[in-house]
Parts: sequence; C-alpha cells; structure tokens
Amino acid sequence: MFDKLHEECGVFGIFGHPEASNLSYLGLYALQHRGQEGCGIVSSDGTRLHAHRGMGLVADVFRDEEIFNRLSGPSAIGHVRYSTAGGKDVKNVQPIMVDYLRGSIAVAHNGNLVNAQEIRNELELAGSIFSTTSDTEVIVHLLAKAQSDSLPDRVSEVLQVVRGAYSLVFLTETRLVAVRDPNGFRPLVLGRLDGAYVVASESCAFDLIEAEFIREIEPGEMIVVDKEGMKSYHIFGKVNPTPCIFEHIYFARPDSIVFGRQVYGVRKEFGRMLAREYAVDADVVIPIPDSGVPSAIGYAEESGIPFQLGLIRNHYVGRTFIEPQQSIRHFGVKIKLNPVREVIEGKRVVVIDDSIVRGTTARKIIKMIRAAGAKEIHMRISSPPTSFPCYYGIDTPTRKELISSSHTVEEINRYITSDTLGYLSREGMRAAVGQPGGTKGGHFCDACFSGFYPVKFPRLKADSQLGLF
Amino acid sequence: MFDKLHEECGVFGIFGHPEASNLSYLGLYALQHRGQEGCGIVSSDGTRLHAHRGMGLVADVFRDEEIFNRLSGPSAIGHVRYSTAGGKDVKNVQPIMVDYLRGSIAVAHNGNLVNAQEIRNELELAGSIFSTTSDTEVIVHLLAKAQSDSLPDRVSEVLQVVRGAYSLVFLTETRLVAVRDPNGFRPLVLGRLDGAYVVASESCAFDLIEAEFIREIEPGEMIVVDKEGMKSYHIFGKVNPTPCIFEHIYFARPDSIVFGRQVYGVRKEFGRMLAREYAVDADVVIPIPDSGVPSAIGYAEESGIPFQLGLIRNHYVGRTFIEPQQSIRHFGVKIKLNPVREVIEGKRVVVIDDSIVRGTTARKIIKMIRAAGAKEIHMRISSPPTSFPCYYGIDTPTRKELISSSHTVEEINRYITSDTLGYLSREGMRAAVGQPGGTKGGHFCDACFSGFYPVKFPRLKADSQLGLF
Amino acid sequence: MFDKLHEECGVFGIFGHPEASNLSYLGLYALQHRGQEGCGIVSSDGTRLHAHRGMGLVADVFRDEEIFNRLSGPSAIGHVRYSTAGGKDVKNVQPIMVDYLRGSIAVAHNGNLVNAQEIRNELELAGSIFSTTSDTEVIVHLLAKAQSDSLPDRVSEVLQVVRGAYSLVFLTETRLVAVRDPNGFRPLVLGRLDGAYVVASESCAFDLIEAEFIREIEPGEMIVVDKEGMKSYHIFGKVNPTPCIFEHIYFARPDSIVFGRQVYGVRKEFGRMLAREYAVDADVVIPIPDSGVPSAIGYAEESGIPFQLGLIRNHYVGRTFIEPQQSIRHFGVKIKLNPVREVIEGKRVVVIDDSIVRGTTARKIIKMIRAAGAKEIHMRISSPPTSFPCYYGIDTPTRKELISSSHTVEEINRYITSDTLGYLSREGMRAAVGQPGGTKGGHFCDACFSGFYPVKFPRLKADSQLGLF
Amino acid sequence: MFDKLHEECGVFGIFGHPEASNLSYLGLYALQHRGQEGCGIVSSDGTRLHAHRGMGLVADVFRDEEIFNRLSGPSAIGHVRYSTAGGKDVKNVQPIMVDYLRGSIAVAHNGNLVNAQEIRNELELAGSIFSTTSDTEVIVHLLAKAQSDSLPDRVSEVLQVVRGAYSLVFLTETRLVAVRDPNGFRPLVLGRLDGAYVVASESCAFDLIEAEFIREIEPGEMIVVDKEGMKSYHIFGKVNPTPCIFEHIYFARPDSIVFGRQVYGVRKEFGRMLAREYAVDADVVIPIPDSGVPSAIGYAEESGIPFQLGLIRNHYVGRTFIEPQQSIRHFGVKIKLNPVREVIEGKRVVVIDDSIVRGTTARKIIKMIRAAGAKEIHMRISSPPTSFPCYYGIDTPTRKELISSSHTVEEINRYITSDTLGYLSREGMRAAVGQPGGTKGGHFCDACFSGFYPVKFPRLKADSQLGLF
Repeated sequence: MFDKLHEECGVFGIFGHPEASNLSYLGLYALQHRGQEGCGIVSSDGTRLHAHRGMGLVADVFRDEEIFNRLSGPSAIGHVRYSTAGGKDVKNVQPIMVDYLRGSIAVAHNGNLVNAQEIRNELELAGSIFSTTSDTEVIVHLLAKAQSDSLPDRVSEVLQVVRGAYSLVFLTETRLVAVRDPNGFRPLVLGRLDGAYVVASESCAFDLIEAEFIREIEPGEMIVVDKEGMKSYHIFGKVNPTPCIFEHIYFARPDSIVFGRQVYGVRKEFGRMLAREYAVDADVVIPIPDSGVPSAIGYAEESGIPFQLGLIRNHYVGRTFIEPQQSIRHFGVKIKLNPVREVIEGKRVVVIDDSIVRGTTARKIIKMIRAAGAKEIHMRISSPPTSFPCYYGIDTPTRKELISSSHTVEEINRYITSDTLGYLSREGMRAAVGQPGGTKGGHFCDACFSGFYPVKFPRLKADSQLGLF
Repeated sequence: MFDKLHEECGVFGIFGHPEASNLSYLGLYALQHRGQEGCGIVSSDGTRLHAHRGMGLVADVFRDEEIFNRLSGPSAIGHVRYSTAGGKDVKNVQPIMVDYLRGSIAVAHNGNLVNAQEIRNELELAGSIFSTTSDTEVIVHLLAKAQSDSLPDRVSEVLQVVRGAYSLVFLTETRLVAVRDPNGFRPLVLGRLDGAYVVASESCAFDLIEAEFIREIEPGEMIVVDKEGMKSYHIFGKVNPTPCIFEHIYFARPDSIVFGRQVYGVRKEFGRMLAREYAVDADVVIPIPDSGVPSAIGYAEESGIPFQLGLIRNHYVGRTFIEPQQSIRHFGVKIKLNPVREVIEGKRVVVIDDSIVRGTTARKIIKMIRAAGAKEIHMRISSPPTSFPCYYGIDTPTRKELISSSHTVEEINRYITSDTLGYLSREGMRAAVGQPGGTKGGHFCDACFSGFYPVKFPRLKADSQLGLF
Repeated sequence: MFDKLHEECGVFGIFGHPEASNLSYLGLYALQHRGQEGCGIVSSDGTRLHAHRGMGLVADVFRDEEIFNRLSGPSAIGHVRYSTAGGKDVKNVQPIMVDYLRGSIAVAHNGNLVNAQEIRNELELAGSIFSTTSDTEVIVHLLAKAQSDSLPDRVSEVLQVVRGAYSLVFLTETRLVAVRDPNGFRPLVLGRLDGAYVVASESCAFDLIEAEFIREIEPGEMIVVDKEGMKSYHIFGKVNPTPCIFEHIYFARPDSIVFGRQVYGVRKEFGRMLAREYAVDADVVIPIPDSGVPSAIGYAEESGIPFQLGLIRNHYVGRTFIEPQQSIRHFGVKIKLNPVREVIEGKRVVVIDDSIVRGTTARKIIKMIRAAGAKEIHMRISSPPTSFPCYYGIDTPTRKELISSSHTVEEINRYITSDTLGYLSREGMRAAVGQPGGTKGGHFCDACFSGFYPVKFPRLKADSQLGLF
Repeated sequence: MFDKLHEECGVFGIFGHPEASNLSYLGLYALQHRGQEGCGIVSSDGTRLHAHRGMGLVADVFRDEEIFNRLSGPSAIGHVRYSTAGGKDVKNVQPIMVDYLRGSIAVAHNGNLVNAQEIRNELELAGSIFSTTSDTEVIVHLLAKAQSDSLPDRVSEVLQVVRGAYSLVFLTETRLVAVRDPNGFRPLVLGRLDGAYVVASESCAFDLIEAEFIREIEPGEMIVVDKEGMKSYHIFGKVNPTPCIFEHIYFARPDSIVFGRQVYGVRKEFGRMLAREYAVDADVVIPIPDSGVPSAIGYAEESGIPFQLGLIRNHYVGRTFIEPQQSIRHFGVKIKLNPVREVIEGKRVVVIDDSIVRGTTARKIIKMIRAAGAKEIHMRISSPPTSFPCYYGIDTPTRKELISSSHTVEEINRYITSDTLGYLSREGMRAAVGQPGGTKGGHFCDACFSGFYPVKFPRLKADSQLGLF
C-alpha cells in the first residue's frame, strides 16, 4: 500500500516454443502482482520483432486473440510494470524495442540503475536522444554503441558500465539473453517447458504454464539462448551477492520460490519470530489481508493465540474508484477492507502487517478496528522499521515520508493509535530468513532498514531521489 | 465456482440523501460479490427518474463522474446481477424502468419467482408484450394493471399473485418501497444515514457508507418511504419464514450480518462441526480460497490440526482470460489457484470447501494438490451434499449436473480422487447455524440438500428448470 | 414522454438470403443519410430472433465480424435513426424486439403516428407498460392484443387503429411483413437479390447490394414474405396518396428513385424553375453543399450563369467536435464550410439552398460569403417557405422556431443579410415535380408549406407539438 | 525498416496564444485531408513539453476536453499523417518528441528525405538507436549531435546534411521553428492570429481559426519565433525552387492558396485546357467526386457540354468497413460511389478524374457507369500520365504498379474499358498552372510525369523504392 517512486516490475522470457507469445501472456498473468500499470510482449519470428504494449492489466492489454496472431514466432519476452501516481504515459511501457546497427533488440528490465542519470548525461553530451524517462533506455543506448563482435560480449561490455539492480531479459531476432546483476538484488529463475528455455522473475510463472523449475539464474550470471541451446557466462569479478530481503517480506507471491526458499514459509517464520520477540496477552491474531496472512498464521502458531480473518478484503477494488464528490467522508481504506465485528468486538486483538510506510493507512485501519469494538489493539510488523528509501527497484517514498526515518517506535505507536506496536528486529529477521540460497558468501540487502547500501550511488541530496530523472 | 442458471443478485436503495446515486454506487460496490455481470442505478429527482445501466463491474459501468450528474436527485435504487454463461444482453440489466399510467417506476429484484411463466403466459394471452427474459418483468406488468388507489395497495395486490423468492426495491418519482417475500428467502436489511433510510441485500453495504444498521426487513414486510417518513406494512397472512441457508454457506460476504448472525461465525461453526463429524488424522488444514477460509479456521481450531494457506489465489483473474489456442493444456483452475508446495509436500492434507456442485473443479484442485506432493488428501465440505436445484434465487445447475443427486459420497470421493470425503450432515448444519434470527417459528430453507421446497412451483419435468423461461 | 416527436429514419429488410444480416448492414450503410444517431439489425434463423443495436453510425455499431456470426439466419430487418440533440438513450434504438403470446416479433418504423399518444393513454389505462418513448412501441402493443388468427390479419387489425405516416418492416421467426400507410407519406421500395426479396426506404440501398429494383410498395399495400413466397394485400379503403414532397427537396439521396422519379432530376428541375421565377443578373451560381448542388446546376443551366463550387465542405466533420473553451469565437458553420475566395471575390453571387428553417445558419453562411468578398449575394431557395411543422416524420422545429411562419420573405432577407431572397413558389414546385409516380389521384403532401395536413391529428395548441407527448 | 517511404502529411504550429492546443486541434481538423491515419499535438508551457498522439482521425484522437487541459501552454505544434495499409503502429505518429542535452524538442514533418537511410546507417554505425521507422527521426538525431551554440544554427547545421522534401515545424520549451526545404517541394504558410504567429501546410487551416494569411514561408527559409518575436533566416545557397505540382492536381484542398494560387482555379484551368486538347462530342460531363469536380466544371465550361453530378459519393464511408464474408461480390468502389442513372442512361459521357494510378479503380468506375446505361464513355484525366514514383512526399506506388509506366494511353484505354481516353499534356498542364508564385526562377516539380527529379537520391534499382529502407 505504497505510493510508489521507483519502478517495481516483473519480467518473463521464452525461447523456442511454438506458443511463445501466449505463454508469455500467461507468465505475465502470474506476475501481475509485480506491476499493474502497464505491460507488453515482444516476440521474434526469427527475422523480425513484433511488439504489443499498453497501459493496464495483462488481461486488458491482451484482450484480443488477434494480438497473438501478430506476436508470431517461437521466442518472446514480456514485462509488467508497477503503477506510479501520475506517470500514465504509454511511452515508458516495456519491453523497449529499438533498431540499431545490428538489427532490432528488445529489453525488459526489473530493477533500478543507480548511475543511469550520469550515463544519460554523458550520452546526451555525445548527441544521444532519449524517448522515455526510464533508466532502461541507457542500456539500449550503450548496447548500440558497444564495439564487441558478439552479442554476449556487447551485453557484457554494457554491464561493466551500468551499476545497480537489474534482472534483464533481451530478445533479438535470433537470441534471448537473461542476466542478473552481480549483487543479485532482484530474482530471476530459469525453467524448461517442452524443450524450450523459460526465464521469469518468480517461479509462480512456471507453475502456471507447467514449466519445470531448474534453478535461479545466479547473481552475475548471463545466459544466452539460441537455436544451438543455452550458454552460461559469468561476466563480473567476485561480488558478494545481496539479494533483496523485501521480496520475502512483501513483494513476491507466497507460492514463489525466491532466493532458494518458498516465500510463504519465510513469512510464517517472520511471524513466529515476531511472536517470540513481541509476545502479548491477547484474544485473537488477525492479518491485514492479503500480504499479512502468512506472518499472522506464524504469529498465531507460536503464540497460541487463535488466528482469525478479522478484516475482509473487497477483491473488486479497481483503479478507477470514484468517490462521492460533495461528501466530506473519505472512503480510502474502507473501500478495500471491512472488519468482522464478531471477531473483534470486546477482544484484545493482535494485528499483523508486513510494514509501515507513512503510517496513514495503519492509522485508518486501527481506527476501523477500534470502531468495530476491539478492547486492545496490538500492532505487530513482520519486518524492522523502514527508515531508508530503496534505490534498487522497490518503490519506497522519499526518506522524509518514511515515518520510521524520523520517529521512534513509541511515537509511531501513538500516531497510529495502537495500544502497543512491535517491529521484528533486524536480527530476528535475519535469523528467520537465513542465508540467501545458492549464493556463497552472500547476505540479504536490508538497506531499507539499515541504511547500508551495498552498491554506491551518486551523492544525492537527502531525499532527492524523486528528481533522479 | 458454479456455472449459473438462475440469477443471483444484490439490491440497494436510499431515500432522502443529497448524494443518493453516489451512495448507491458505493453500496453496489460492497455488494459486487452478489453479481458481476451487470449493474445499474435509477435515481429520482422528485419528478423524473434517471437511469444508467450496463454490462460489467460496478467500477467499469460507473466510470465517469458525468454519469452521477445525470443521476440527480435525493433517491436512488441499484442492482448488481450475477454472470450467466451466454446471457450477455444488456436488456436484462436492472433496475427495470418503465412508464405506465401513473408515471414511471423502477424495480430491482433479488430472488426468483416460481410462477412467473404462468403469469407471463396469462399476460401474453391478454396482449402483454415482454421486452426482457427476466421474471422481474411480470411484476411491473402486474403493477401496471393493479387497480388499487395507493401505491402500497397496488404493490400488495401484485404480491398476492406472484410466488417465490423476492427481495424487491421499487422507486417512483416520490417514493421508495422495499419488500421481502413472506418466506424471507433472500436477505434485506434496513439502515439510516444522515437521516435518510437505506436498504441493502447485506449489511456490508452499510459498513462502507457508514450507515447505521437498524434491523432486517422482516419476511413479509413491506416498507414505504416518502418525504413523510417510513411506514411498515405486513401484507401477507401468517407464513413460517424459511430464509436461505446457502447465504450462510457460500453466498453472503463473511463480514455481513445475515438473518441475525454474522456470516463469518456461522461458517467457522460449520467447520468446527465438520471436524467433530469427520475427524481425520492429518498434518495440515487448508481452505479453497476465499470461500472456504472461515470453515477451515473452524475445522483447524476444533481438530487441533494447523491451519495453513496451501493454495494461493490470483486476484487479477478477470472475465476475459484468453487461453493459448493451439495448446492441448487447459489452464482452468490453475489460472486462479496455485499450491504452496512447502505447505503440502509430504503432508496429509485436509482440504475445506463450501460445496461440491459438478465435482469437476474439486477433481482438478485435488489433482493439483496431489501434484504438489500431498501424501493424503481428505476433502471436507462445510455443507451437506447438494442434490437438488434451487428455485429461489441461488444459481445451481440442473439436477442432472449435480453430482450428489446421482452419486453416493463414496462414488464422489472416487471421482474427485480424494482419499476420504466428508460432508457436513444436515443435522450438524442445523445445529451450527441455529434458528434464523428474529423470525419466530422459522427455519432455514435447505431445499438444495433435502429436496423439501417450502414454496410450491408448477410441476416440471425433472431437471427441466432450464426451460422455465 | 417522447424525447422527440419527429423521427427521421430509414428501414431495410431481406428474406431468404444466406447473407441476410451482412446485406442488411450494407443496406443501412447506403441509407445512413436518413439517420446517424443509432442503428440496429434483427435477424431470424427460422426459430429465434437475434438483435444487435447501438448508438452511432452503422460502421461503428457493426464493427466486429463476430456480430454477424450472432446475427445468424436467412432473414433480417434493419433501421437507422436520426440524430436528435440530447436523446442519446439506447433504449429508443430500433428495430424494437419483443416477446408476446405468439413468439417474437421485431419492427422497424420510418414515419410518425399522429394518434400514438391517444392510443398509449388507452393502453396504459388498461395496464400496459412502455419501455421506450417511441411511438413505434404502441404498434407492438396493439399487435400483441390483436385477436385475428393470421399475422397479416393482425397487422391489418392494428393498422386500422394507428393513423399517420409509416413505412414499417416487421420480422417474425418465419415471416417478413412490409407495409406503407395509405397516404404513402414515406417511401418504401421492393427489390430482388438472388431470389430473395428485399425492401428498403430508398433504391440506393439496392444499388449497393446489386439488388434489382422491382417497384415501389404502394401506399396502403402490405406485402408478406415467407418461404412460400410473397403475397400482396391492400388493407385500406380508397385513400388518395399524399407522399412527402420533402423527400425530393432534401431528405432522400439524389441517386435514389423516390415516388417514381430519380431525386437528382427533380432537384435540378426545382433549380430551373427557381431560375425562371427569380432571375437575377449575377456572375456565379454556387450551391450550399451537398444538398444544394443539383438545384444549383439546374439554376445555372436555366439562367446561363456559370455554376461554381464556391463553398468547400469538410467531410471529416464528426459528431464530437470540441470547441475551444475559453474562446469567444464560435466555429459552427465554419467547421463544415469554407469559401473559395477566388470564386466569390468581387462577384455577384447566387447562392442555392434547399430550405431555410430558423435562418441562423443561412445568416452565418451569407456573412462568410460576404467576408470572402462577394459584391452581391442573391439567396435562392429551391422550395417554398417552410411555415408549418411536419407531423409525418420529417424533423422540423416548432412553428415558433420556423422563421417563415412569422416573417415575410423581405424580413427574412434582411435577417439573413442577403441582397435578395427568392423562394420557389408552391406552383413552381408542383409543376417541377409533377404527380407522384404510380399513385392515381395522388398529389404530394406539402403541409410544411401549405399548412394543409392530409391526415388529421389531435387538436393541439399552436406550436405545442413538441409537447405532444 | 520504414513501413512506407512516402508519407503524406500536414503540419501546424502556433506560438504565443492562450488557446494554442485548441487552435492546433482546429488547424489539424482543417488539414485532415492530408492524413487520416494518425495525429498528434505537442504543446509547451514554457518549461515543459506535453504530448498527445494517437491513431485515427483528429476528432477521435482528441475526444476528451481533459486532453486539452494536459496540453497546456501558449505554444503548440501538430501533425496529421496519411493512412497506409498495414502500418498501424502508434510509434510512427508525430510530432516526434525527445529529450536531449539541451532539453526537450518536438518535430512535425511533411515531406520525405531522400538520404535518410544513408544518414541512418552512419548514425547507427556510430551507435545511435532508432525508435521509429520514420525518416523524421534522423533529423532529431542529427539535431542532438549538432554542435552550434544557437538553436537556429543547429537546425541549419542539420539541414545542410539532409536532402529531399521537408516542411518542418519544431517546438522547444521556448521557441517555434518552421522551415521549408530549398526546393520548396511541400507548402508551408505563415499567418497571424491575435498577435500570435501561426504556420500551416495549407491556408485552409487559417480560414477555420480566422487567422490572417501573411505569406508563404519561402523555399529555403527558416523562421524562428520566440517571445521576442519572429526572425527569418535563409540558410541555403541559391536553389531554383521546384514546388510539387501534385498539390495542385490532387492533394491540397481546393479552397487553399498553395504556391501563390488558389487550388480551385488551377484545377478548373486544367479542365479547360483538357477540353481544348481532348475535345469530344458528348452529352454530359461528370466528375469523379470529390477531387474531379473543379476540373469537370472547367471542362464543361470550355466545351459547352453540360456539367452534371453523375456519381453520388457516400460520405459516411469509414475505415472499418466490413465486407460480407461469404460473398463472392466485392463492393470496393460501390461503397463509395453510386451512379445517377437518369444523368447517364443513353448518354455520351465525359468522365473527369485527376489521375490514374493502377487503373483498377478507373476500370471499376467505368464499368459501373456503363451498367448505368452510358452510350459512350470518354475518360479525361486532368494531369499527364503518372509514370514515375514520387520521392518527395506524395504516396505513389512503385513504378511497376503505375500503369502509365509500362502501358501506352491506348493500352490503358482498353484496360479501363473507356471508349476514349485523354490525358492533359505536360505543356498544357504547365500553361494552365503558370509559374509557382513568389518563387523567382522556379518551376513546378513534375518528376512523377517527366522522370526528371530535381533532388538526386541514392542510386536505386528501378522500382525498388519501396525497399529503400
């Protein structure tokens, strides 16, 4: 429930399957939670690329079967993009597709480059023009200027220049390239279906299309698929991976395997640890649906306090809700959530959410629960206080807007009007999630909690990331 | 997850509020689960009625603020209508609005009239013409022919003729009438907001607009609201009420108060009773989301087996999903649900659902859970076998299609490939739900389980209700 | 209340052709000039009727091929409806389709019934309800109440009751009926295509689908087509036909044969006669395009003054033109017409139009021509002053708004700022057009010029016809 | 790859008017005949550019008033683009808008660059990437790389590199630049409205917004408008202008002043000359509407044979016409034109058209006229045989498809089945049109007739220009 700054996204790719664009559509469907603003697919028929992109949900943008006739060919990549307030321009919808010296290329990007503006400035000084406001466009510019002979070498050449978080999928007429930044901030998994290779941000996309999960693409690994098969390259020096802990806390789907563990189990473990750290004498544990459910189950199990669905979510909430104009009422959170009075009335209630950003939504929910008759409300957050913005692809507001960056837990407790408030400790979080799977020497990036940023970025004035582009 | 025959619907009405059409919109929004096919609002400005109706979700049909400018006036009624396979014609969208001798009248109907075809035949013999295929249209025809002087008397005159299930809301230029059939099959509640009276199918509509819940409109009660205030009439002789048990089992929202009890608690009680009747040695209890969640919580509490979310639902599933054409795969249930392997693998799993209709969906889900590694699957249904079609407004298929009407529990168990299958007994169901609230001498209609139909209907050949109209 | 009394429309029908709905679409396409507000087609597959109707142009309402798959069957009727300010409700779009005792029936109507409100009042007193504000709906009500055994007899029974102007096409599951009122106000022609019978408002619809023109359906004639073939009935006593002269003046397409003559030639003759009646010494004759072109050619031929296109029409003018908001300018006629300065500058210009209604448009056009440098402007109208409203299906404003009803020709000349103004005389008009073809004893209805109404209507206060219903 | 080499287009620009985007909309409306495929407007509010572009007609793309709120600011440019079969991608819709070192810039282009592919190759070799298939994109690339200090100097620097036909309008945050290639192939006119400068492809755009026509922008002239006022630059050496004769023959609107003369008069003169060159004994002269009308009037005047409208055009023909599928009939030209039998039957008919491209349409029209009863058909073309493709911005097919490039007039006459066929001679055409106005030493480009191309282009195999890119 954030108002977003940076782009959260999901990517998908498939090479060598007769239903490439249809399967990409299904893959994007399963990744829809990673981006609801816009989406697109680019396919290759071996000699030409074909694109369809638009603003809106996957099911709306790809409404007509005729679209899939145009998206012909055995290879395709796709992208879903998160909704950002105001930025409703179709020009930023990915995959980006361009013509350059060596033909056509399309790219889909999940993540955020920290030196994109610097590179863009240099490119513009040399006469480049930019059609979008996306950091992804610098990658295609660099790729067009790369001098190496082979596509893998050119991609590698470019990736020595850009820094930050990226899980990238490229499609040319004859090849698919998937690459993950050396820190491995964002997830990217590899699978097979009927002999074709598939890649996706999360394994839930494989489940839907019934592809076999093979493994994660490793941090710093680039795979290149063509009709000869797949090749793997490691194109960076030794970097200790730092995958993003927030995928486990909030962003990924609970049925996905991310960084070696299924998200559902990790979230439950967060809840259990939270129960150990912030026990309370209470009658009922309720989640803020849907993201708080697994942690609430974990908290309930560990504490022995019964789990109940105390808030019902309206699943028909769309993007175009019109509020009564003349009214002084503001419906906000009520349009999404409604309390079950019977569960709450007269009870001491533990409420589980995954995080608190500005505090305004939490405050409204607590007031709603209080109005439904709760005797006590104990807010429990299944992650530490979010005090620092993310520069690696999670959409957090500026530092100034993050309530934890300037307020103590007790102050926040007073603001949101809970009786008590407890955040999972950083130690508890780390213990619950363990080491990132398959990444030796790695640990999770927790910059949003710790302020320790594993990849440096140009010195910015405090909280000025809004003006990054 | 039914393919529907009859119409399930939701109704809303408000009289005497400056934001009548806007609040109707919000009310329909909260009642969206009762009908996603189409919706409409008719408002009155005191001298004329204004209508806006369309196919689709409330948020899509009422997309432009300009619509609300046209829906002027302090009174309004609204309707949401369930999706039925094929019947995509806008002509059946309610409220129905017509001109007749005494002016204009609009009506919104939830329920099903059992003698509509007989009446329609007679009306047609007398020269009436019908513009829709809806049973509701006979009501307006009868109303136009009614000879009584006052509107309440005319409505009463009509309701002596029609038989079946109906919660009706009428709007004329200057009055709102709400009435519930003497059996009280379908719910209808009364509330107040800023001095205005409001009526709705479920109390969750009141929660959203912050209206105060006053009481249910009683079975057989007609209320008439005009600028003088509200009057209540009892226009039928003594009838023992028989409200629909299926509202509690599946149809109503868990946060609504229906027939005197909050639905969430009733469903949990079904789950508890089910655990007592069909205990099993197992590792985990998982619901089929979303409808099975409260019963699964109840089952888990009573049995002591841990509750987990073993199936994740994709909330972006829309109505326009395009399946890959050439593919031999059928995505069906996979597009909606995905198992959490970690929760299921190697486990003895209790799966809770509210009902089994044809058995095909249950079979697919069980195969999916089995493929995710479940060691044993014990299906538990929080209602008795659904062996008889409903003629009172719940959309069930014909008897022939109801697997319980022709198969034993053991045969169904084999068909859906579960290890064991247990249905809640009729006695257990009755004990769990108790007497319908506020209705002396009443009991719940359970015709879909028992075949005992409290209101008779014209003799039909077995399973021919499809041809009712 | 009828939104508008006077609907201008076009109708089409075809019986017994495998491409019935597609050909109806083409027929409506050719008749588009008779109505741009909305359109619809109803087809019959022999046992059921299928409908598609919508607001907008034919090419927009019938955009998807899938529509034609649904409009299956070898018979179909269609309707185009005139655009009226404000009445943008889809409910009035025809063909009207209803169910009644004997099955389904659809009707498309061009014309206007003068006693529709009286009949409606009686029907409502007897308990009928009305779903539309169209006078056509009384016909289906009467048809449903008709007691005769055969469809032709029932239609005949109904048509003894209604009075006014109607060219009607009915479609049932197995029959097509086409009938013209005994006065024959509106045109209706009969043709054949590949053995199928076709009917249409104008012969230009036959030209497009390459149907053979057979003859006009006669005033008072009813034809019934079923699989046995076509039968013709004359269901009225002797009435002297009075077809509408305004079809020749303005409404019909110049390439159509209407009432026995091709419209183009009649219009040219009006222009010739006008030149004889109102000669003037001038340099150039220009039409107001497109309707004034044939008359202007005739005027030029007769007078010897050269014909030129002095005003160019913008053919992209749509219905959704947005004017600059803040501007004090009003674009009105400029958006449609632009003068050719070279043709006009320094010239004495004869401007030919078919009629003057309110005078406001003529005034704007004359000012525009004057601004382009005309030395003199001589307005010539190819019909007499329009002083009386039409009650038979041409859309005229109330008497009060008709400038000719309250102003002399000289006053109008001053108002529209022309140098001279001349209207074709009623005698000249009659001489130019001759007797209506194939209608013995008949003469053209010229009520809009003469005030002599051949079919009486309920006594109305002067100019109150807008409030007729 | 360019979808299409030869884009016909219209451009508009306005600087310093509070209703800039609204007036641009009106201007594009008047220029709609120059391009119906897509359109767009970019406005500047002084610090930022705002864009709205889309596929479709101006009235459809700019449907909502809200669009104009977003297109804020006192300056704007606009573009309409010609419809080409297949190339329905929104990415080519102009104005192109990009960010580069010095800010944002938008450009609208009418014309065609003959060395675009060469430049594009070089740019791609240097690492540039292209987002569109339009030749216009090379201009913005070059502009981004230009090193001069001032915008006028940079534009000038770019225009020394590109060759071909261009009327260009640029918009930056603070300036509008309009420039015409030194040959002046395409028109571009300058006007004033309420103190603001306006530019447009044709003067008819000024007529609609009531701007004052000042003069043509001269071949080779660049004007720069900012808040200081307007400056004019001549940035090329001496070139003899060669404006396009085809604007007079077919492309421009007859009410526009183009290259110093009103088009209507020129076309009439073509018709007069044609009558002198190819007299024939006949009964009637009819135009192919609408483009043939002025020439036909001229032919009629000169020959003394009466002018008639023998073919009626259906003005509702849209782009989405659906032909009956199963039918063997092809409607093609019939959907647009219908003969007036009375005018044609038994007559010797002279038919006037502006040109013959492939001959297939002429053949269909002549067959239609013959079927309407013409005794003789004498086809007269108001321009010489079109034997050579245009490389300067008129959309002609390849040489192979131009019937005149490989067939004699007599062969064409036989193919199109006319009795006689006469083309205006090149000498007659030149005599009729005279010298291009205001361009000393200039003459019209008639490469499409003569094969003499005033601006050289890369050597191409005959007829391969479609494959130029």
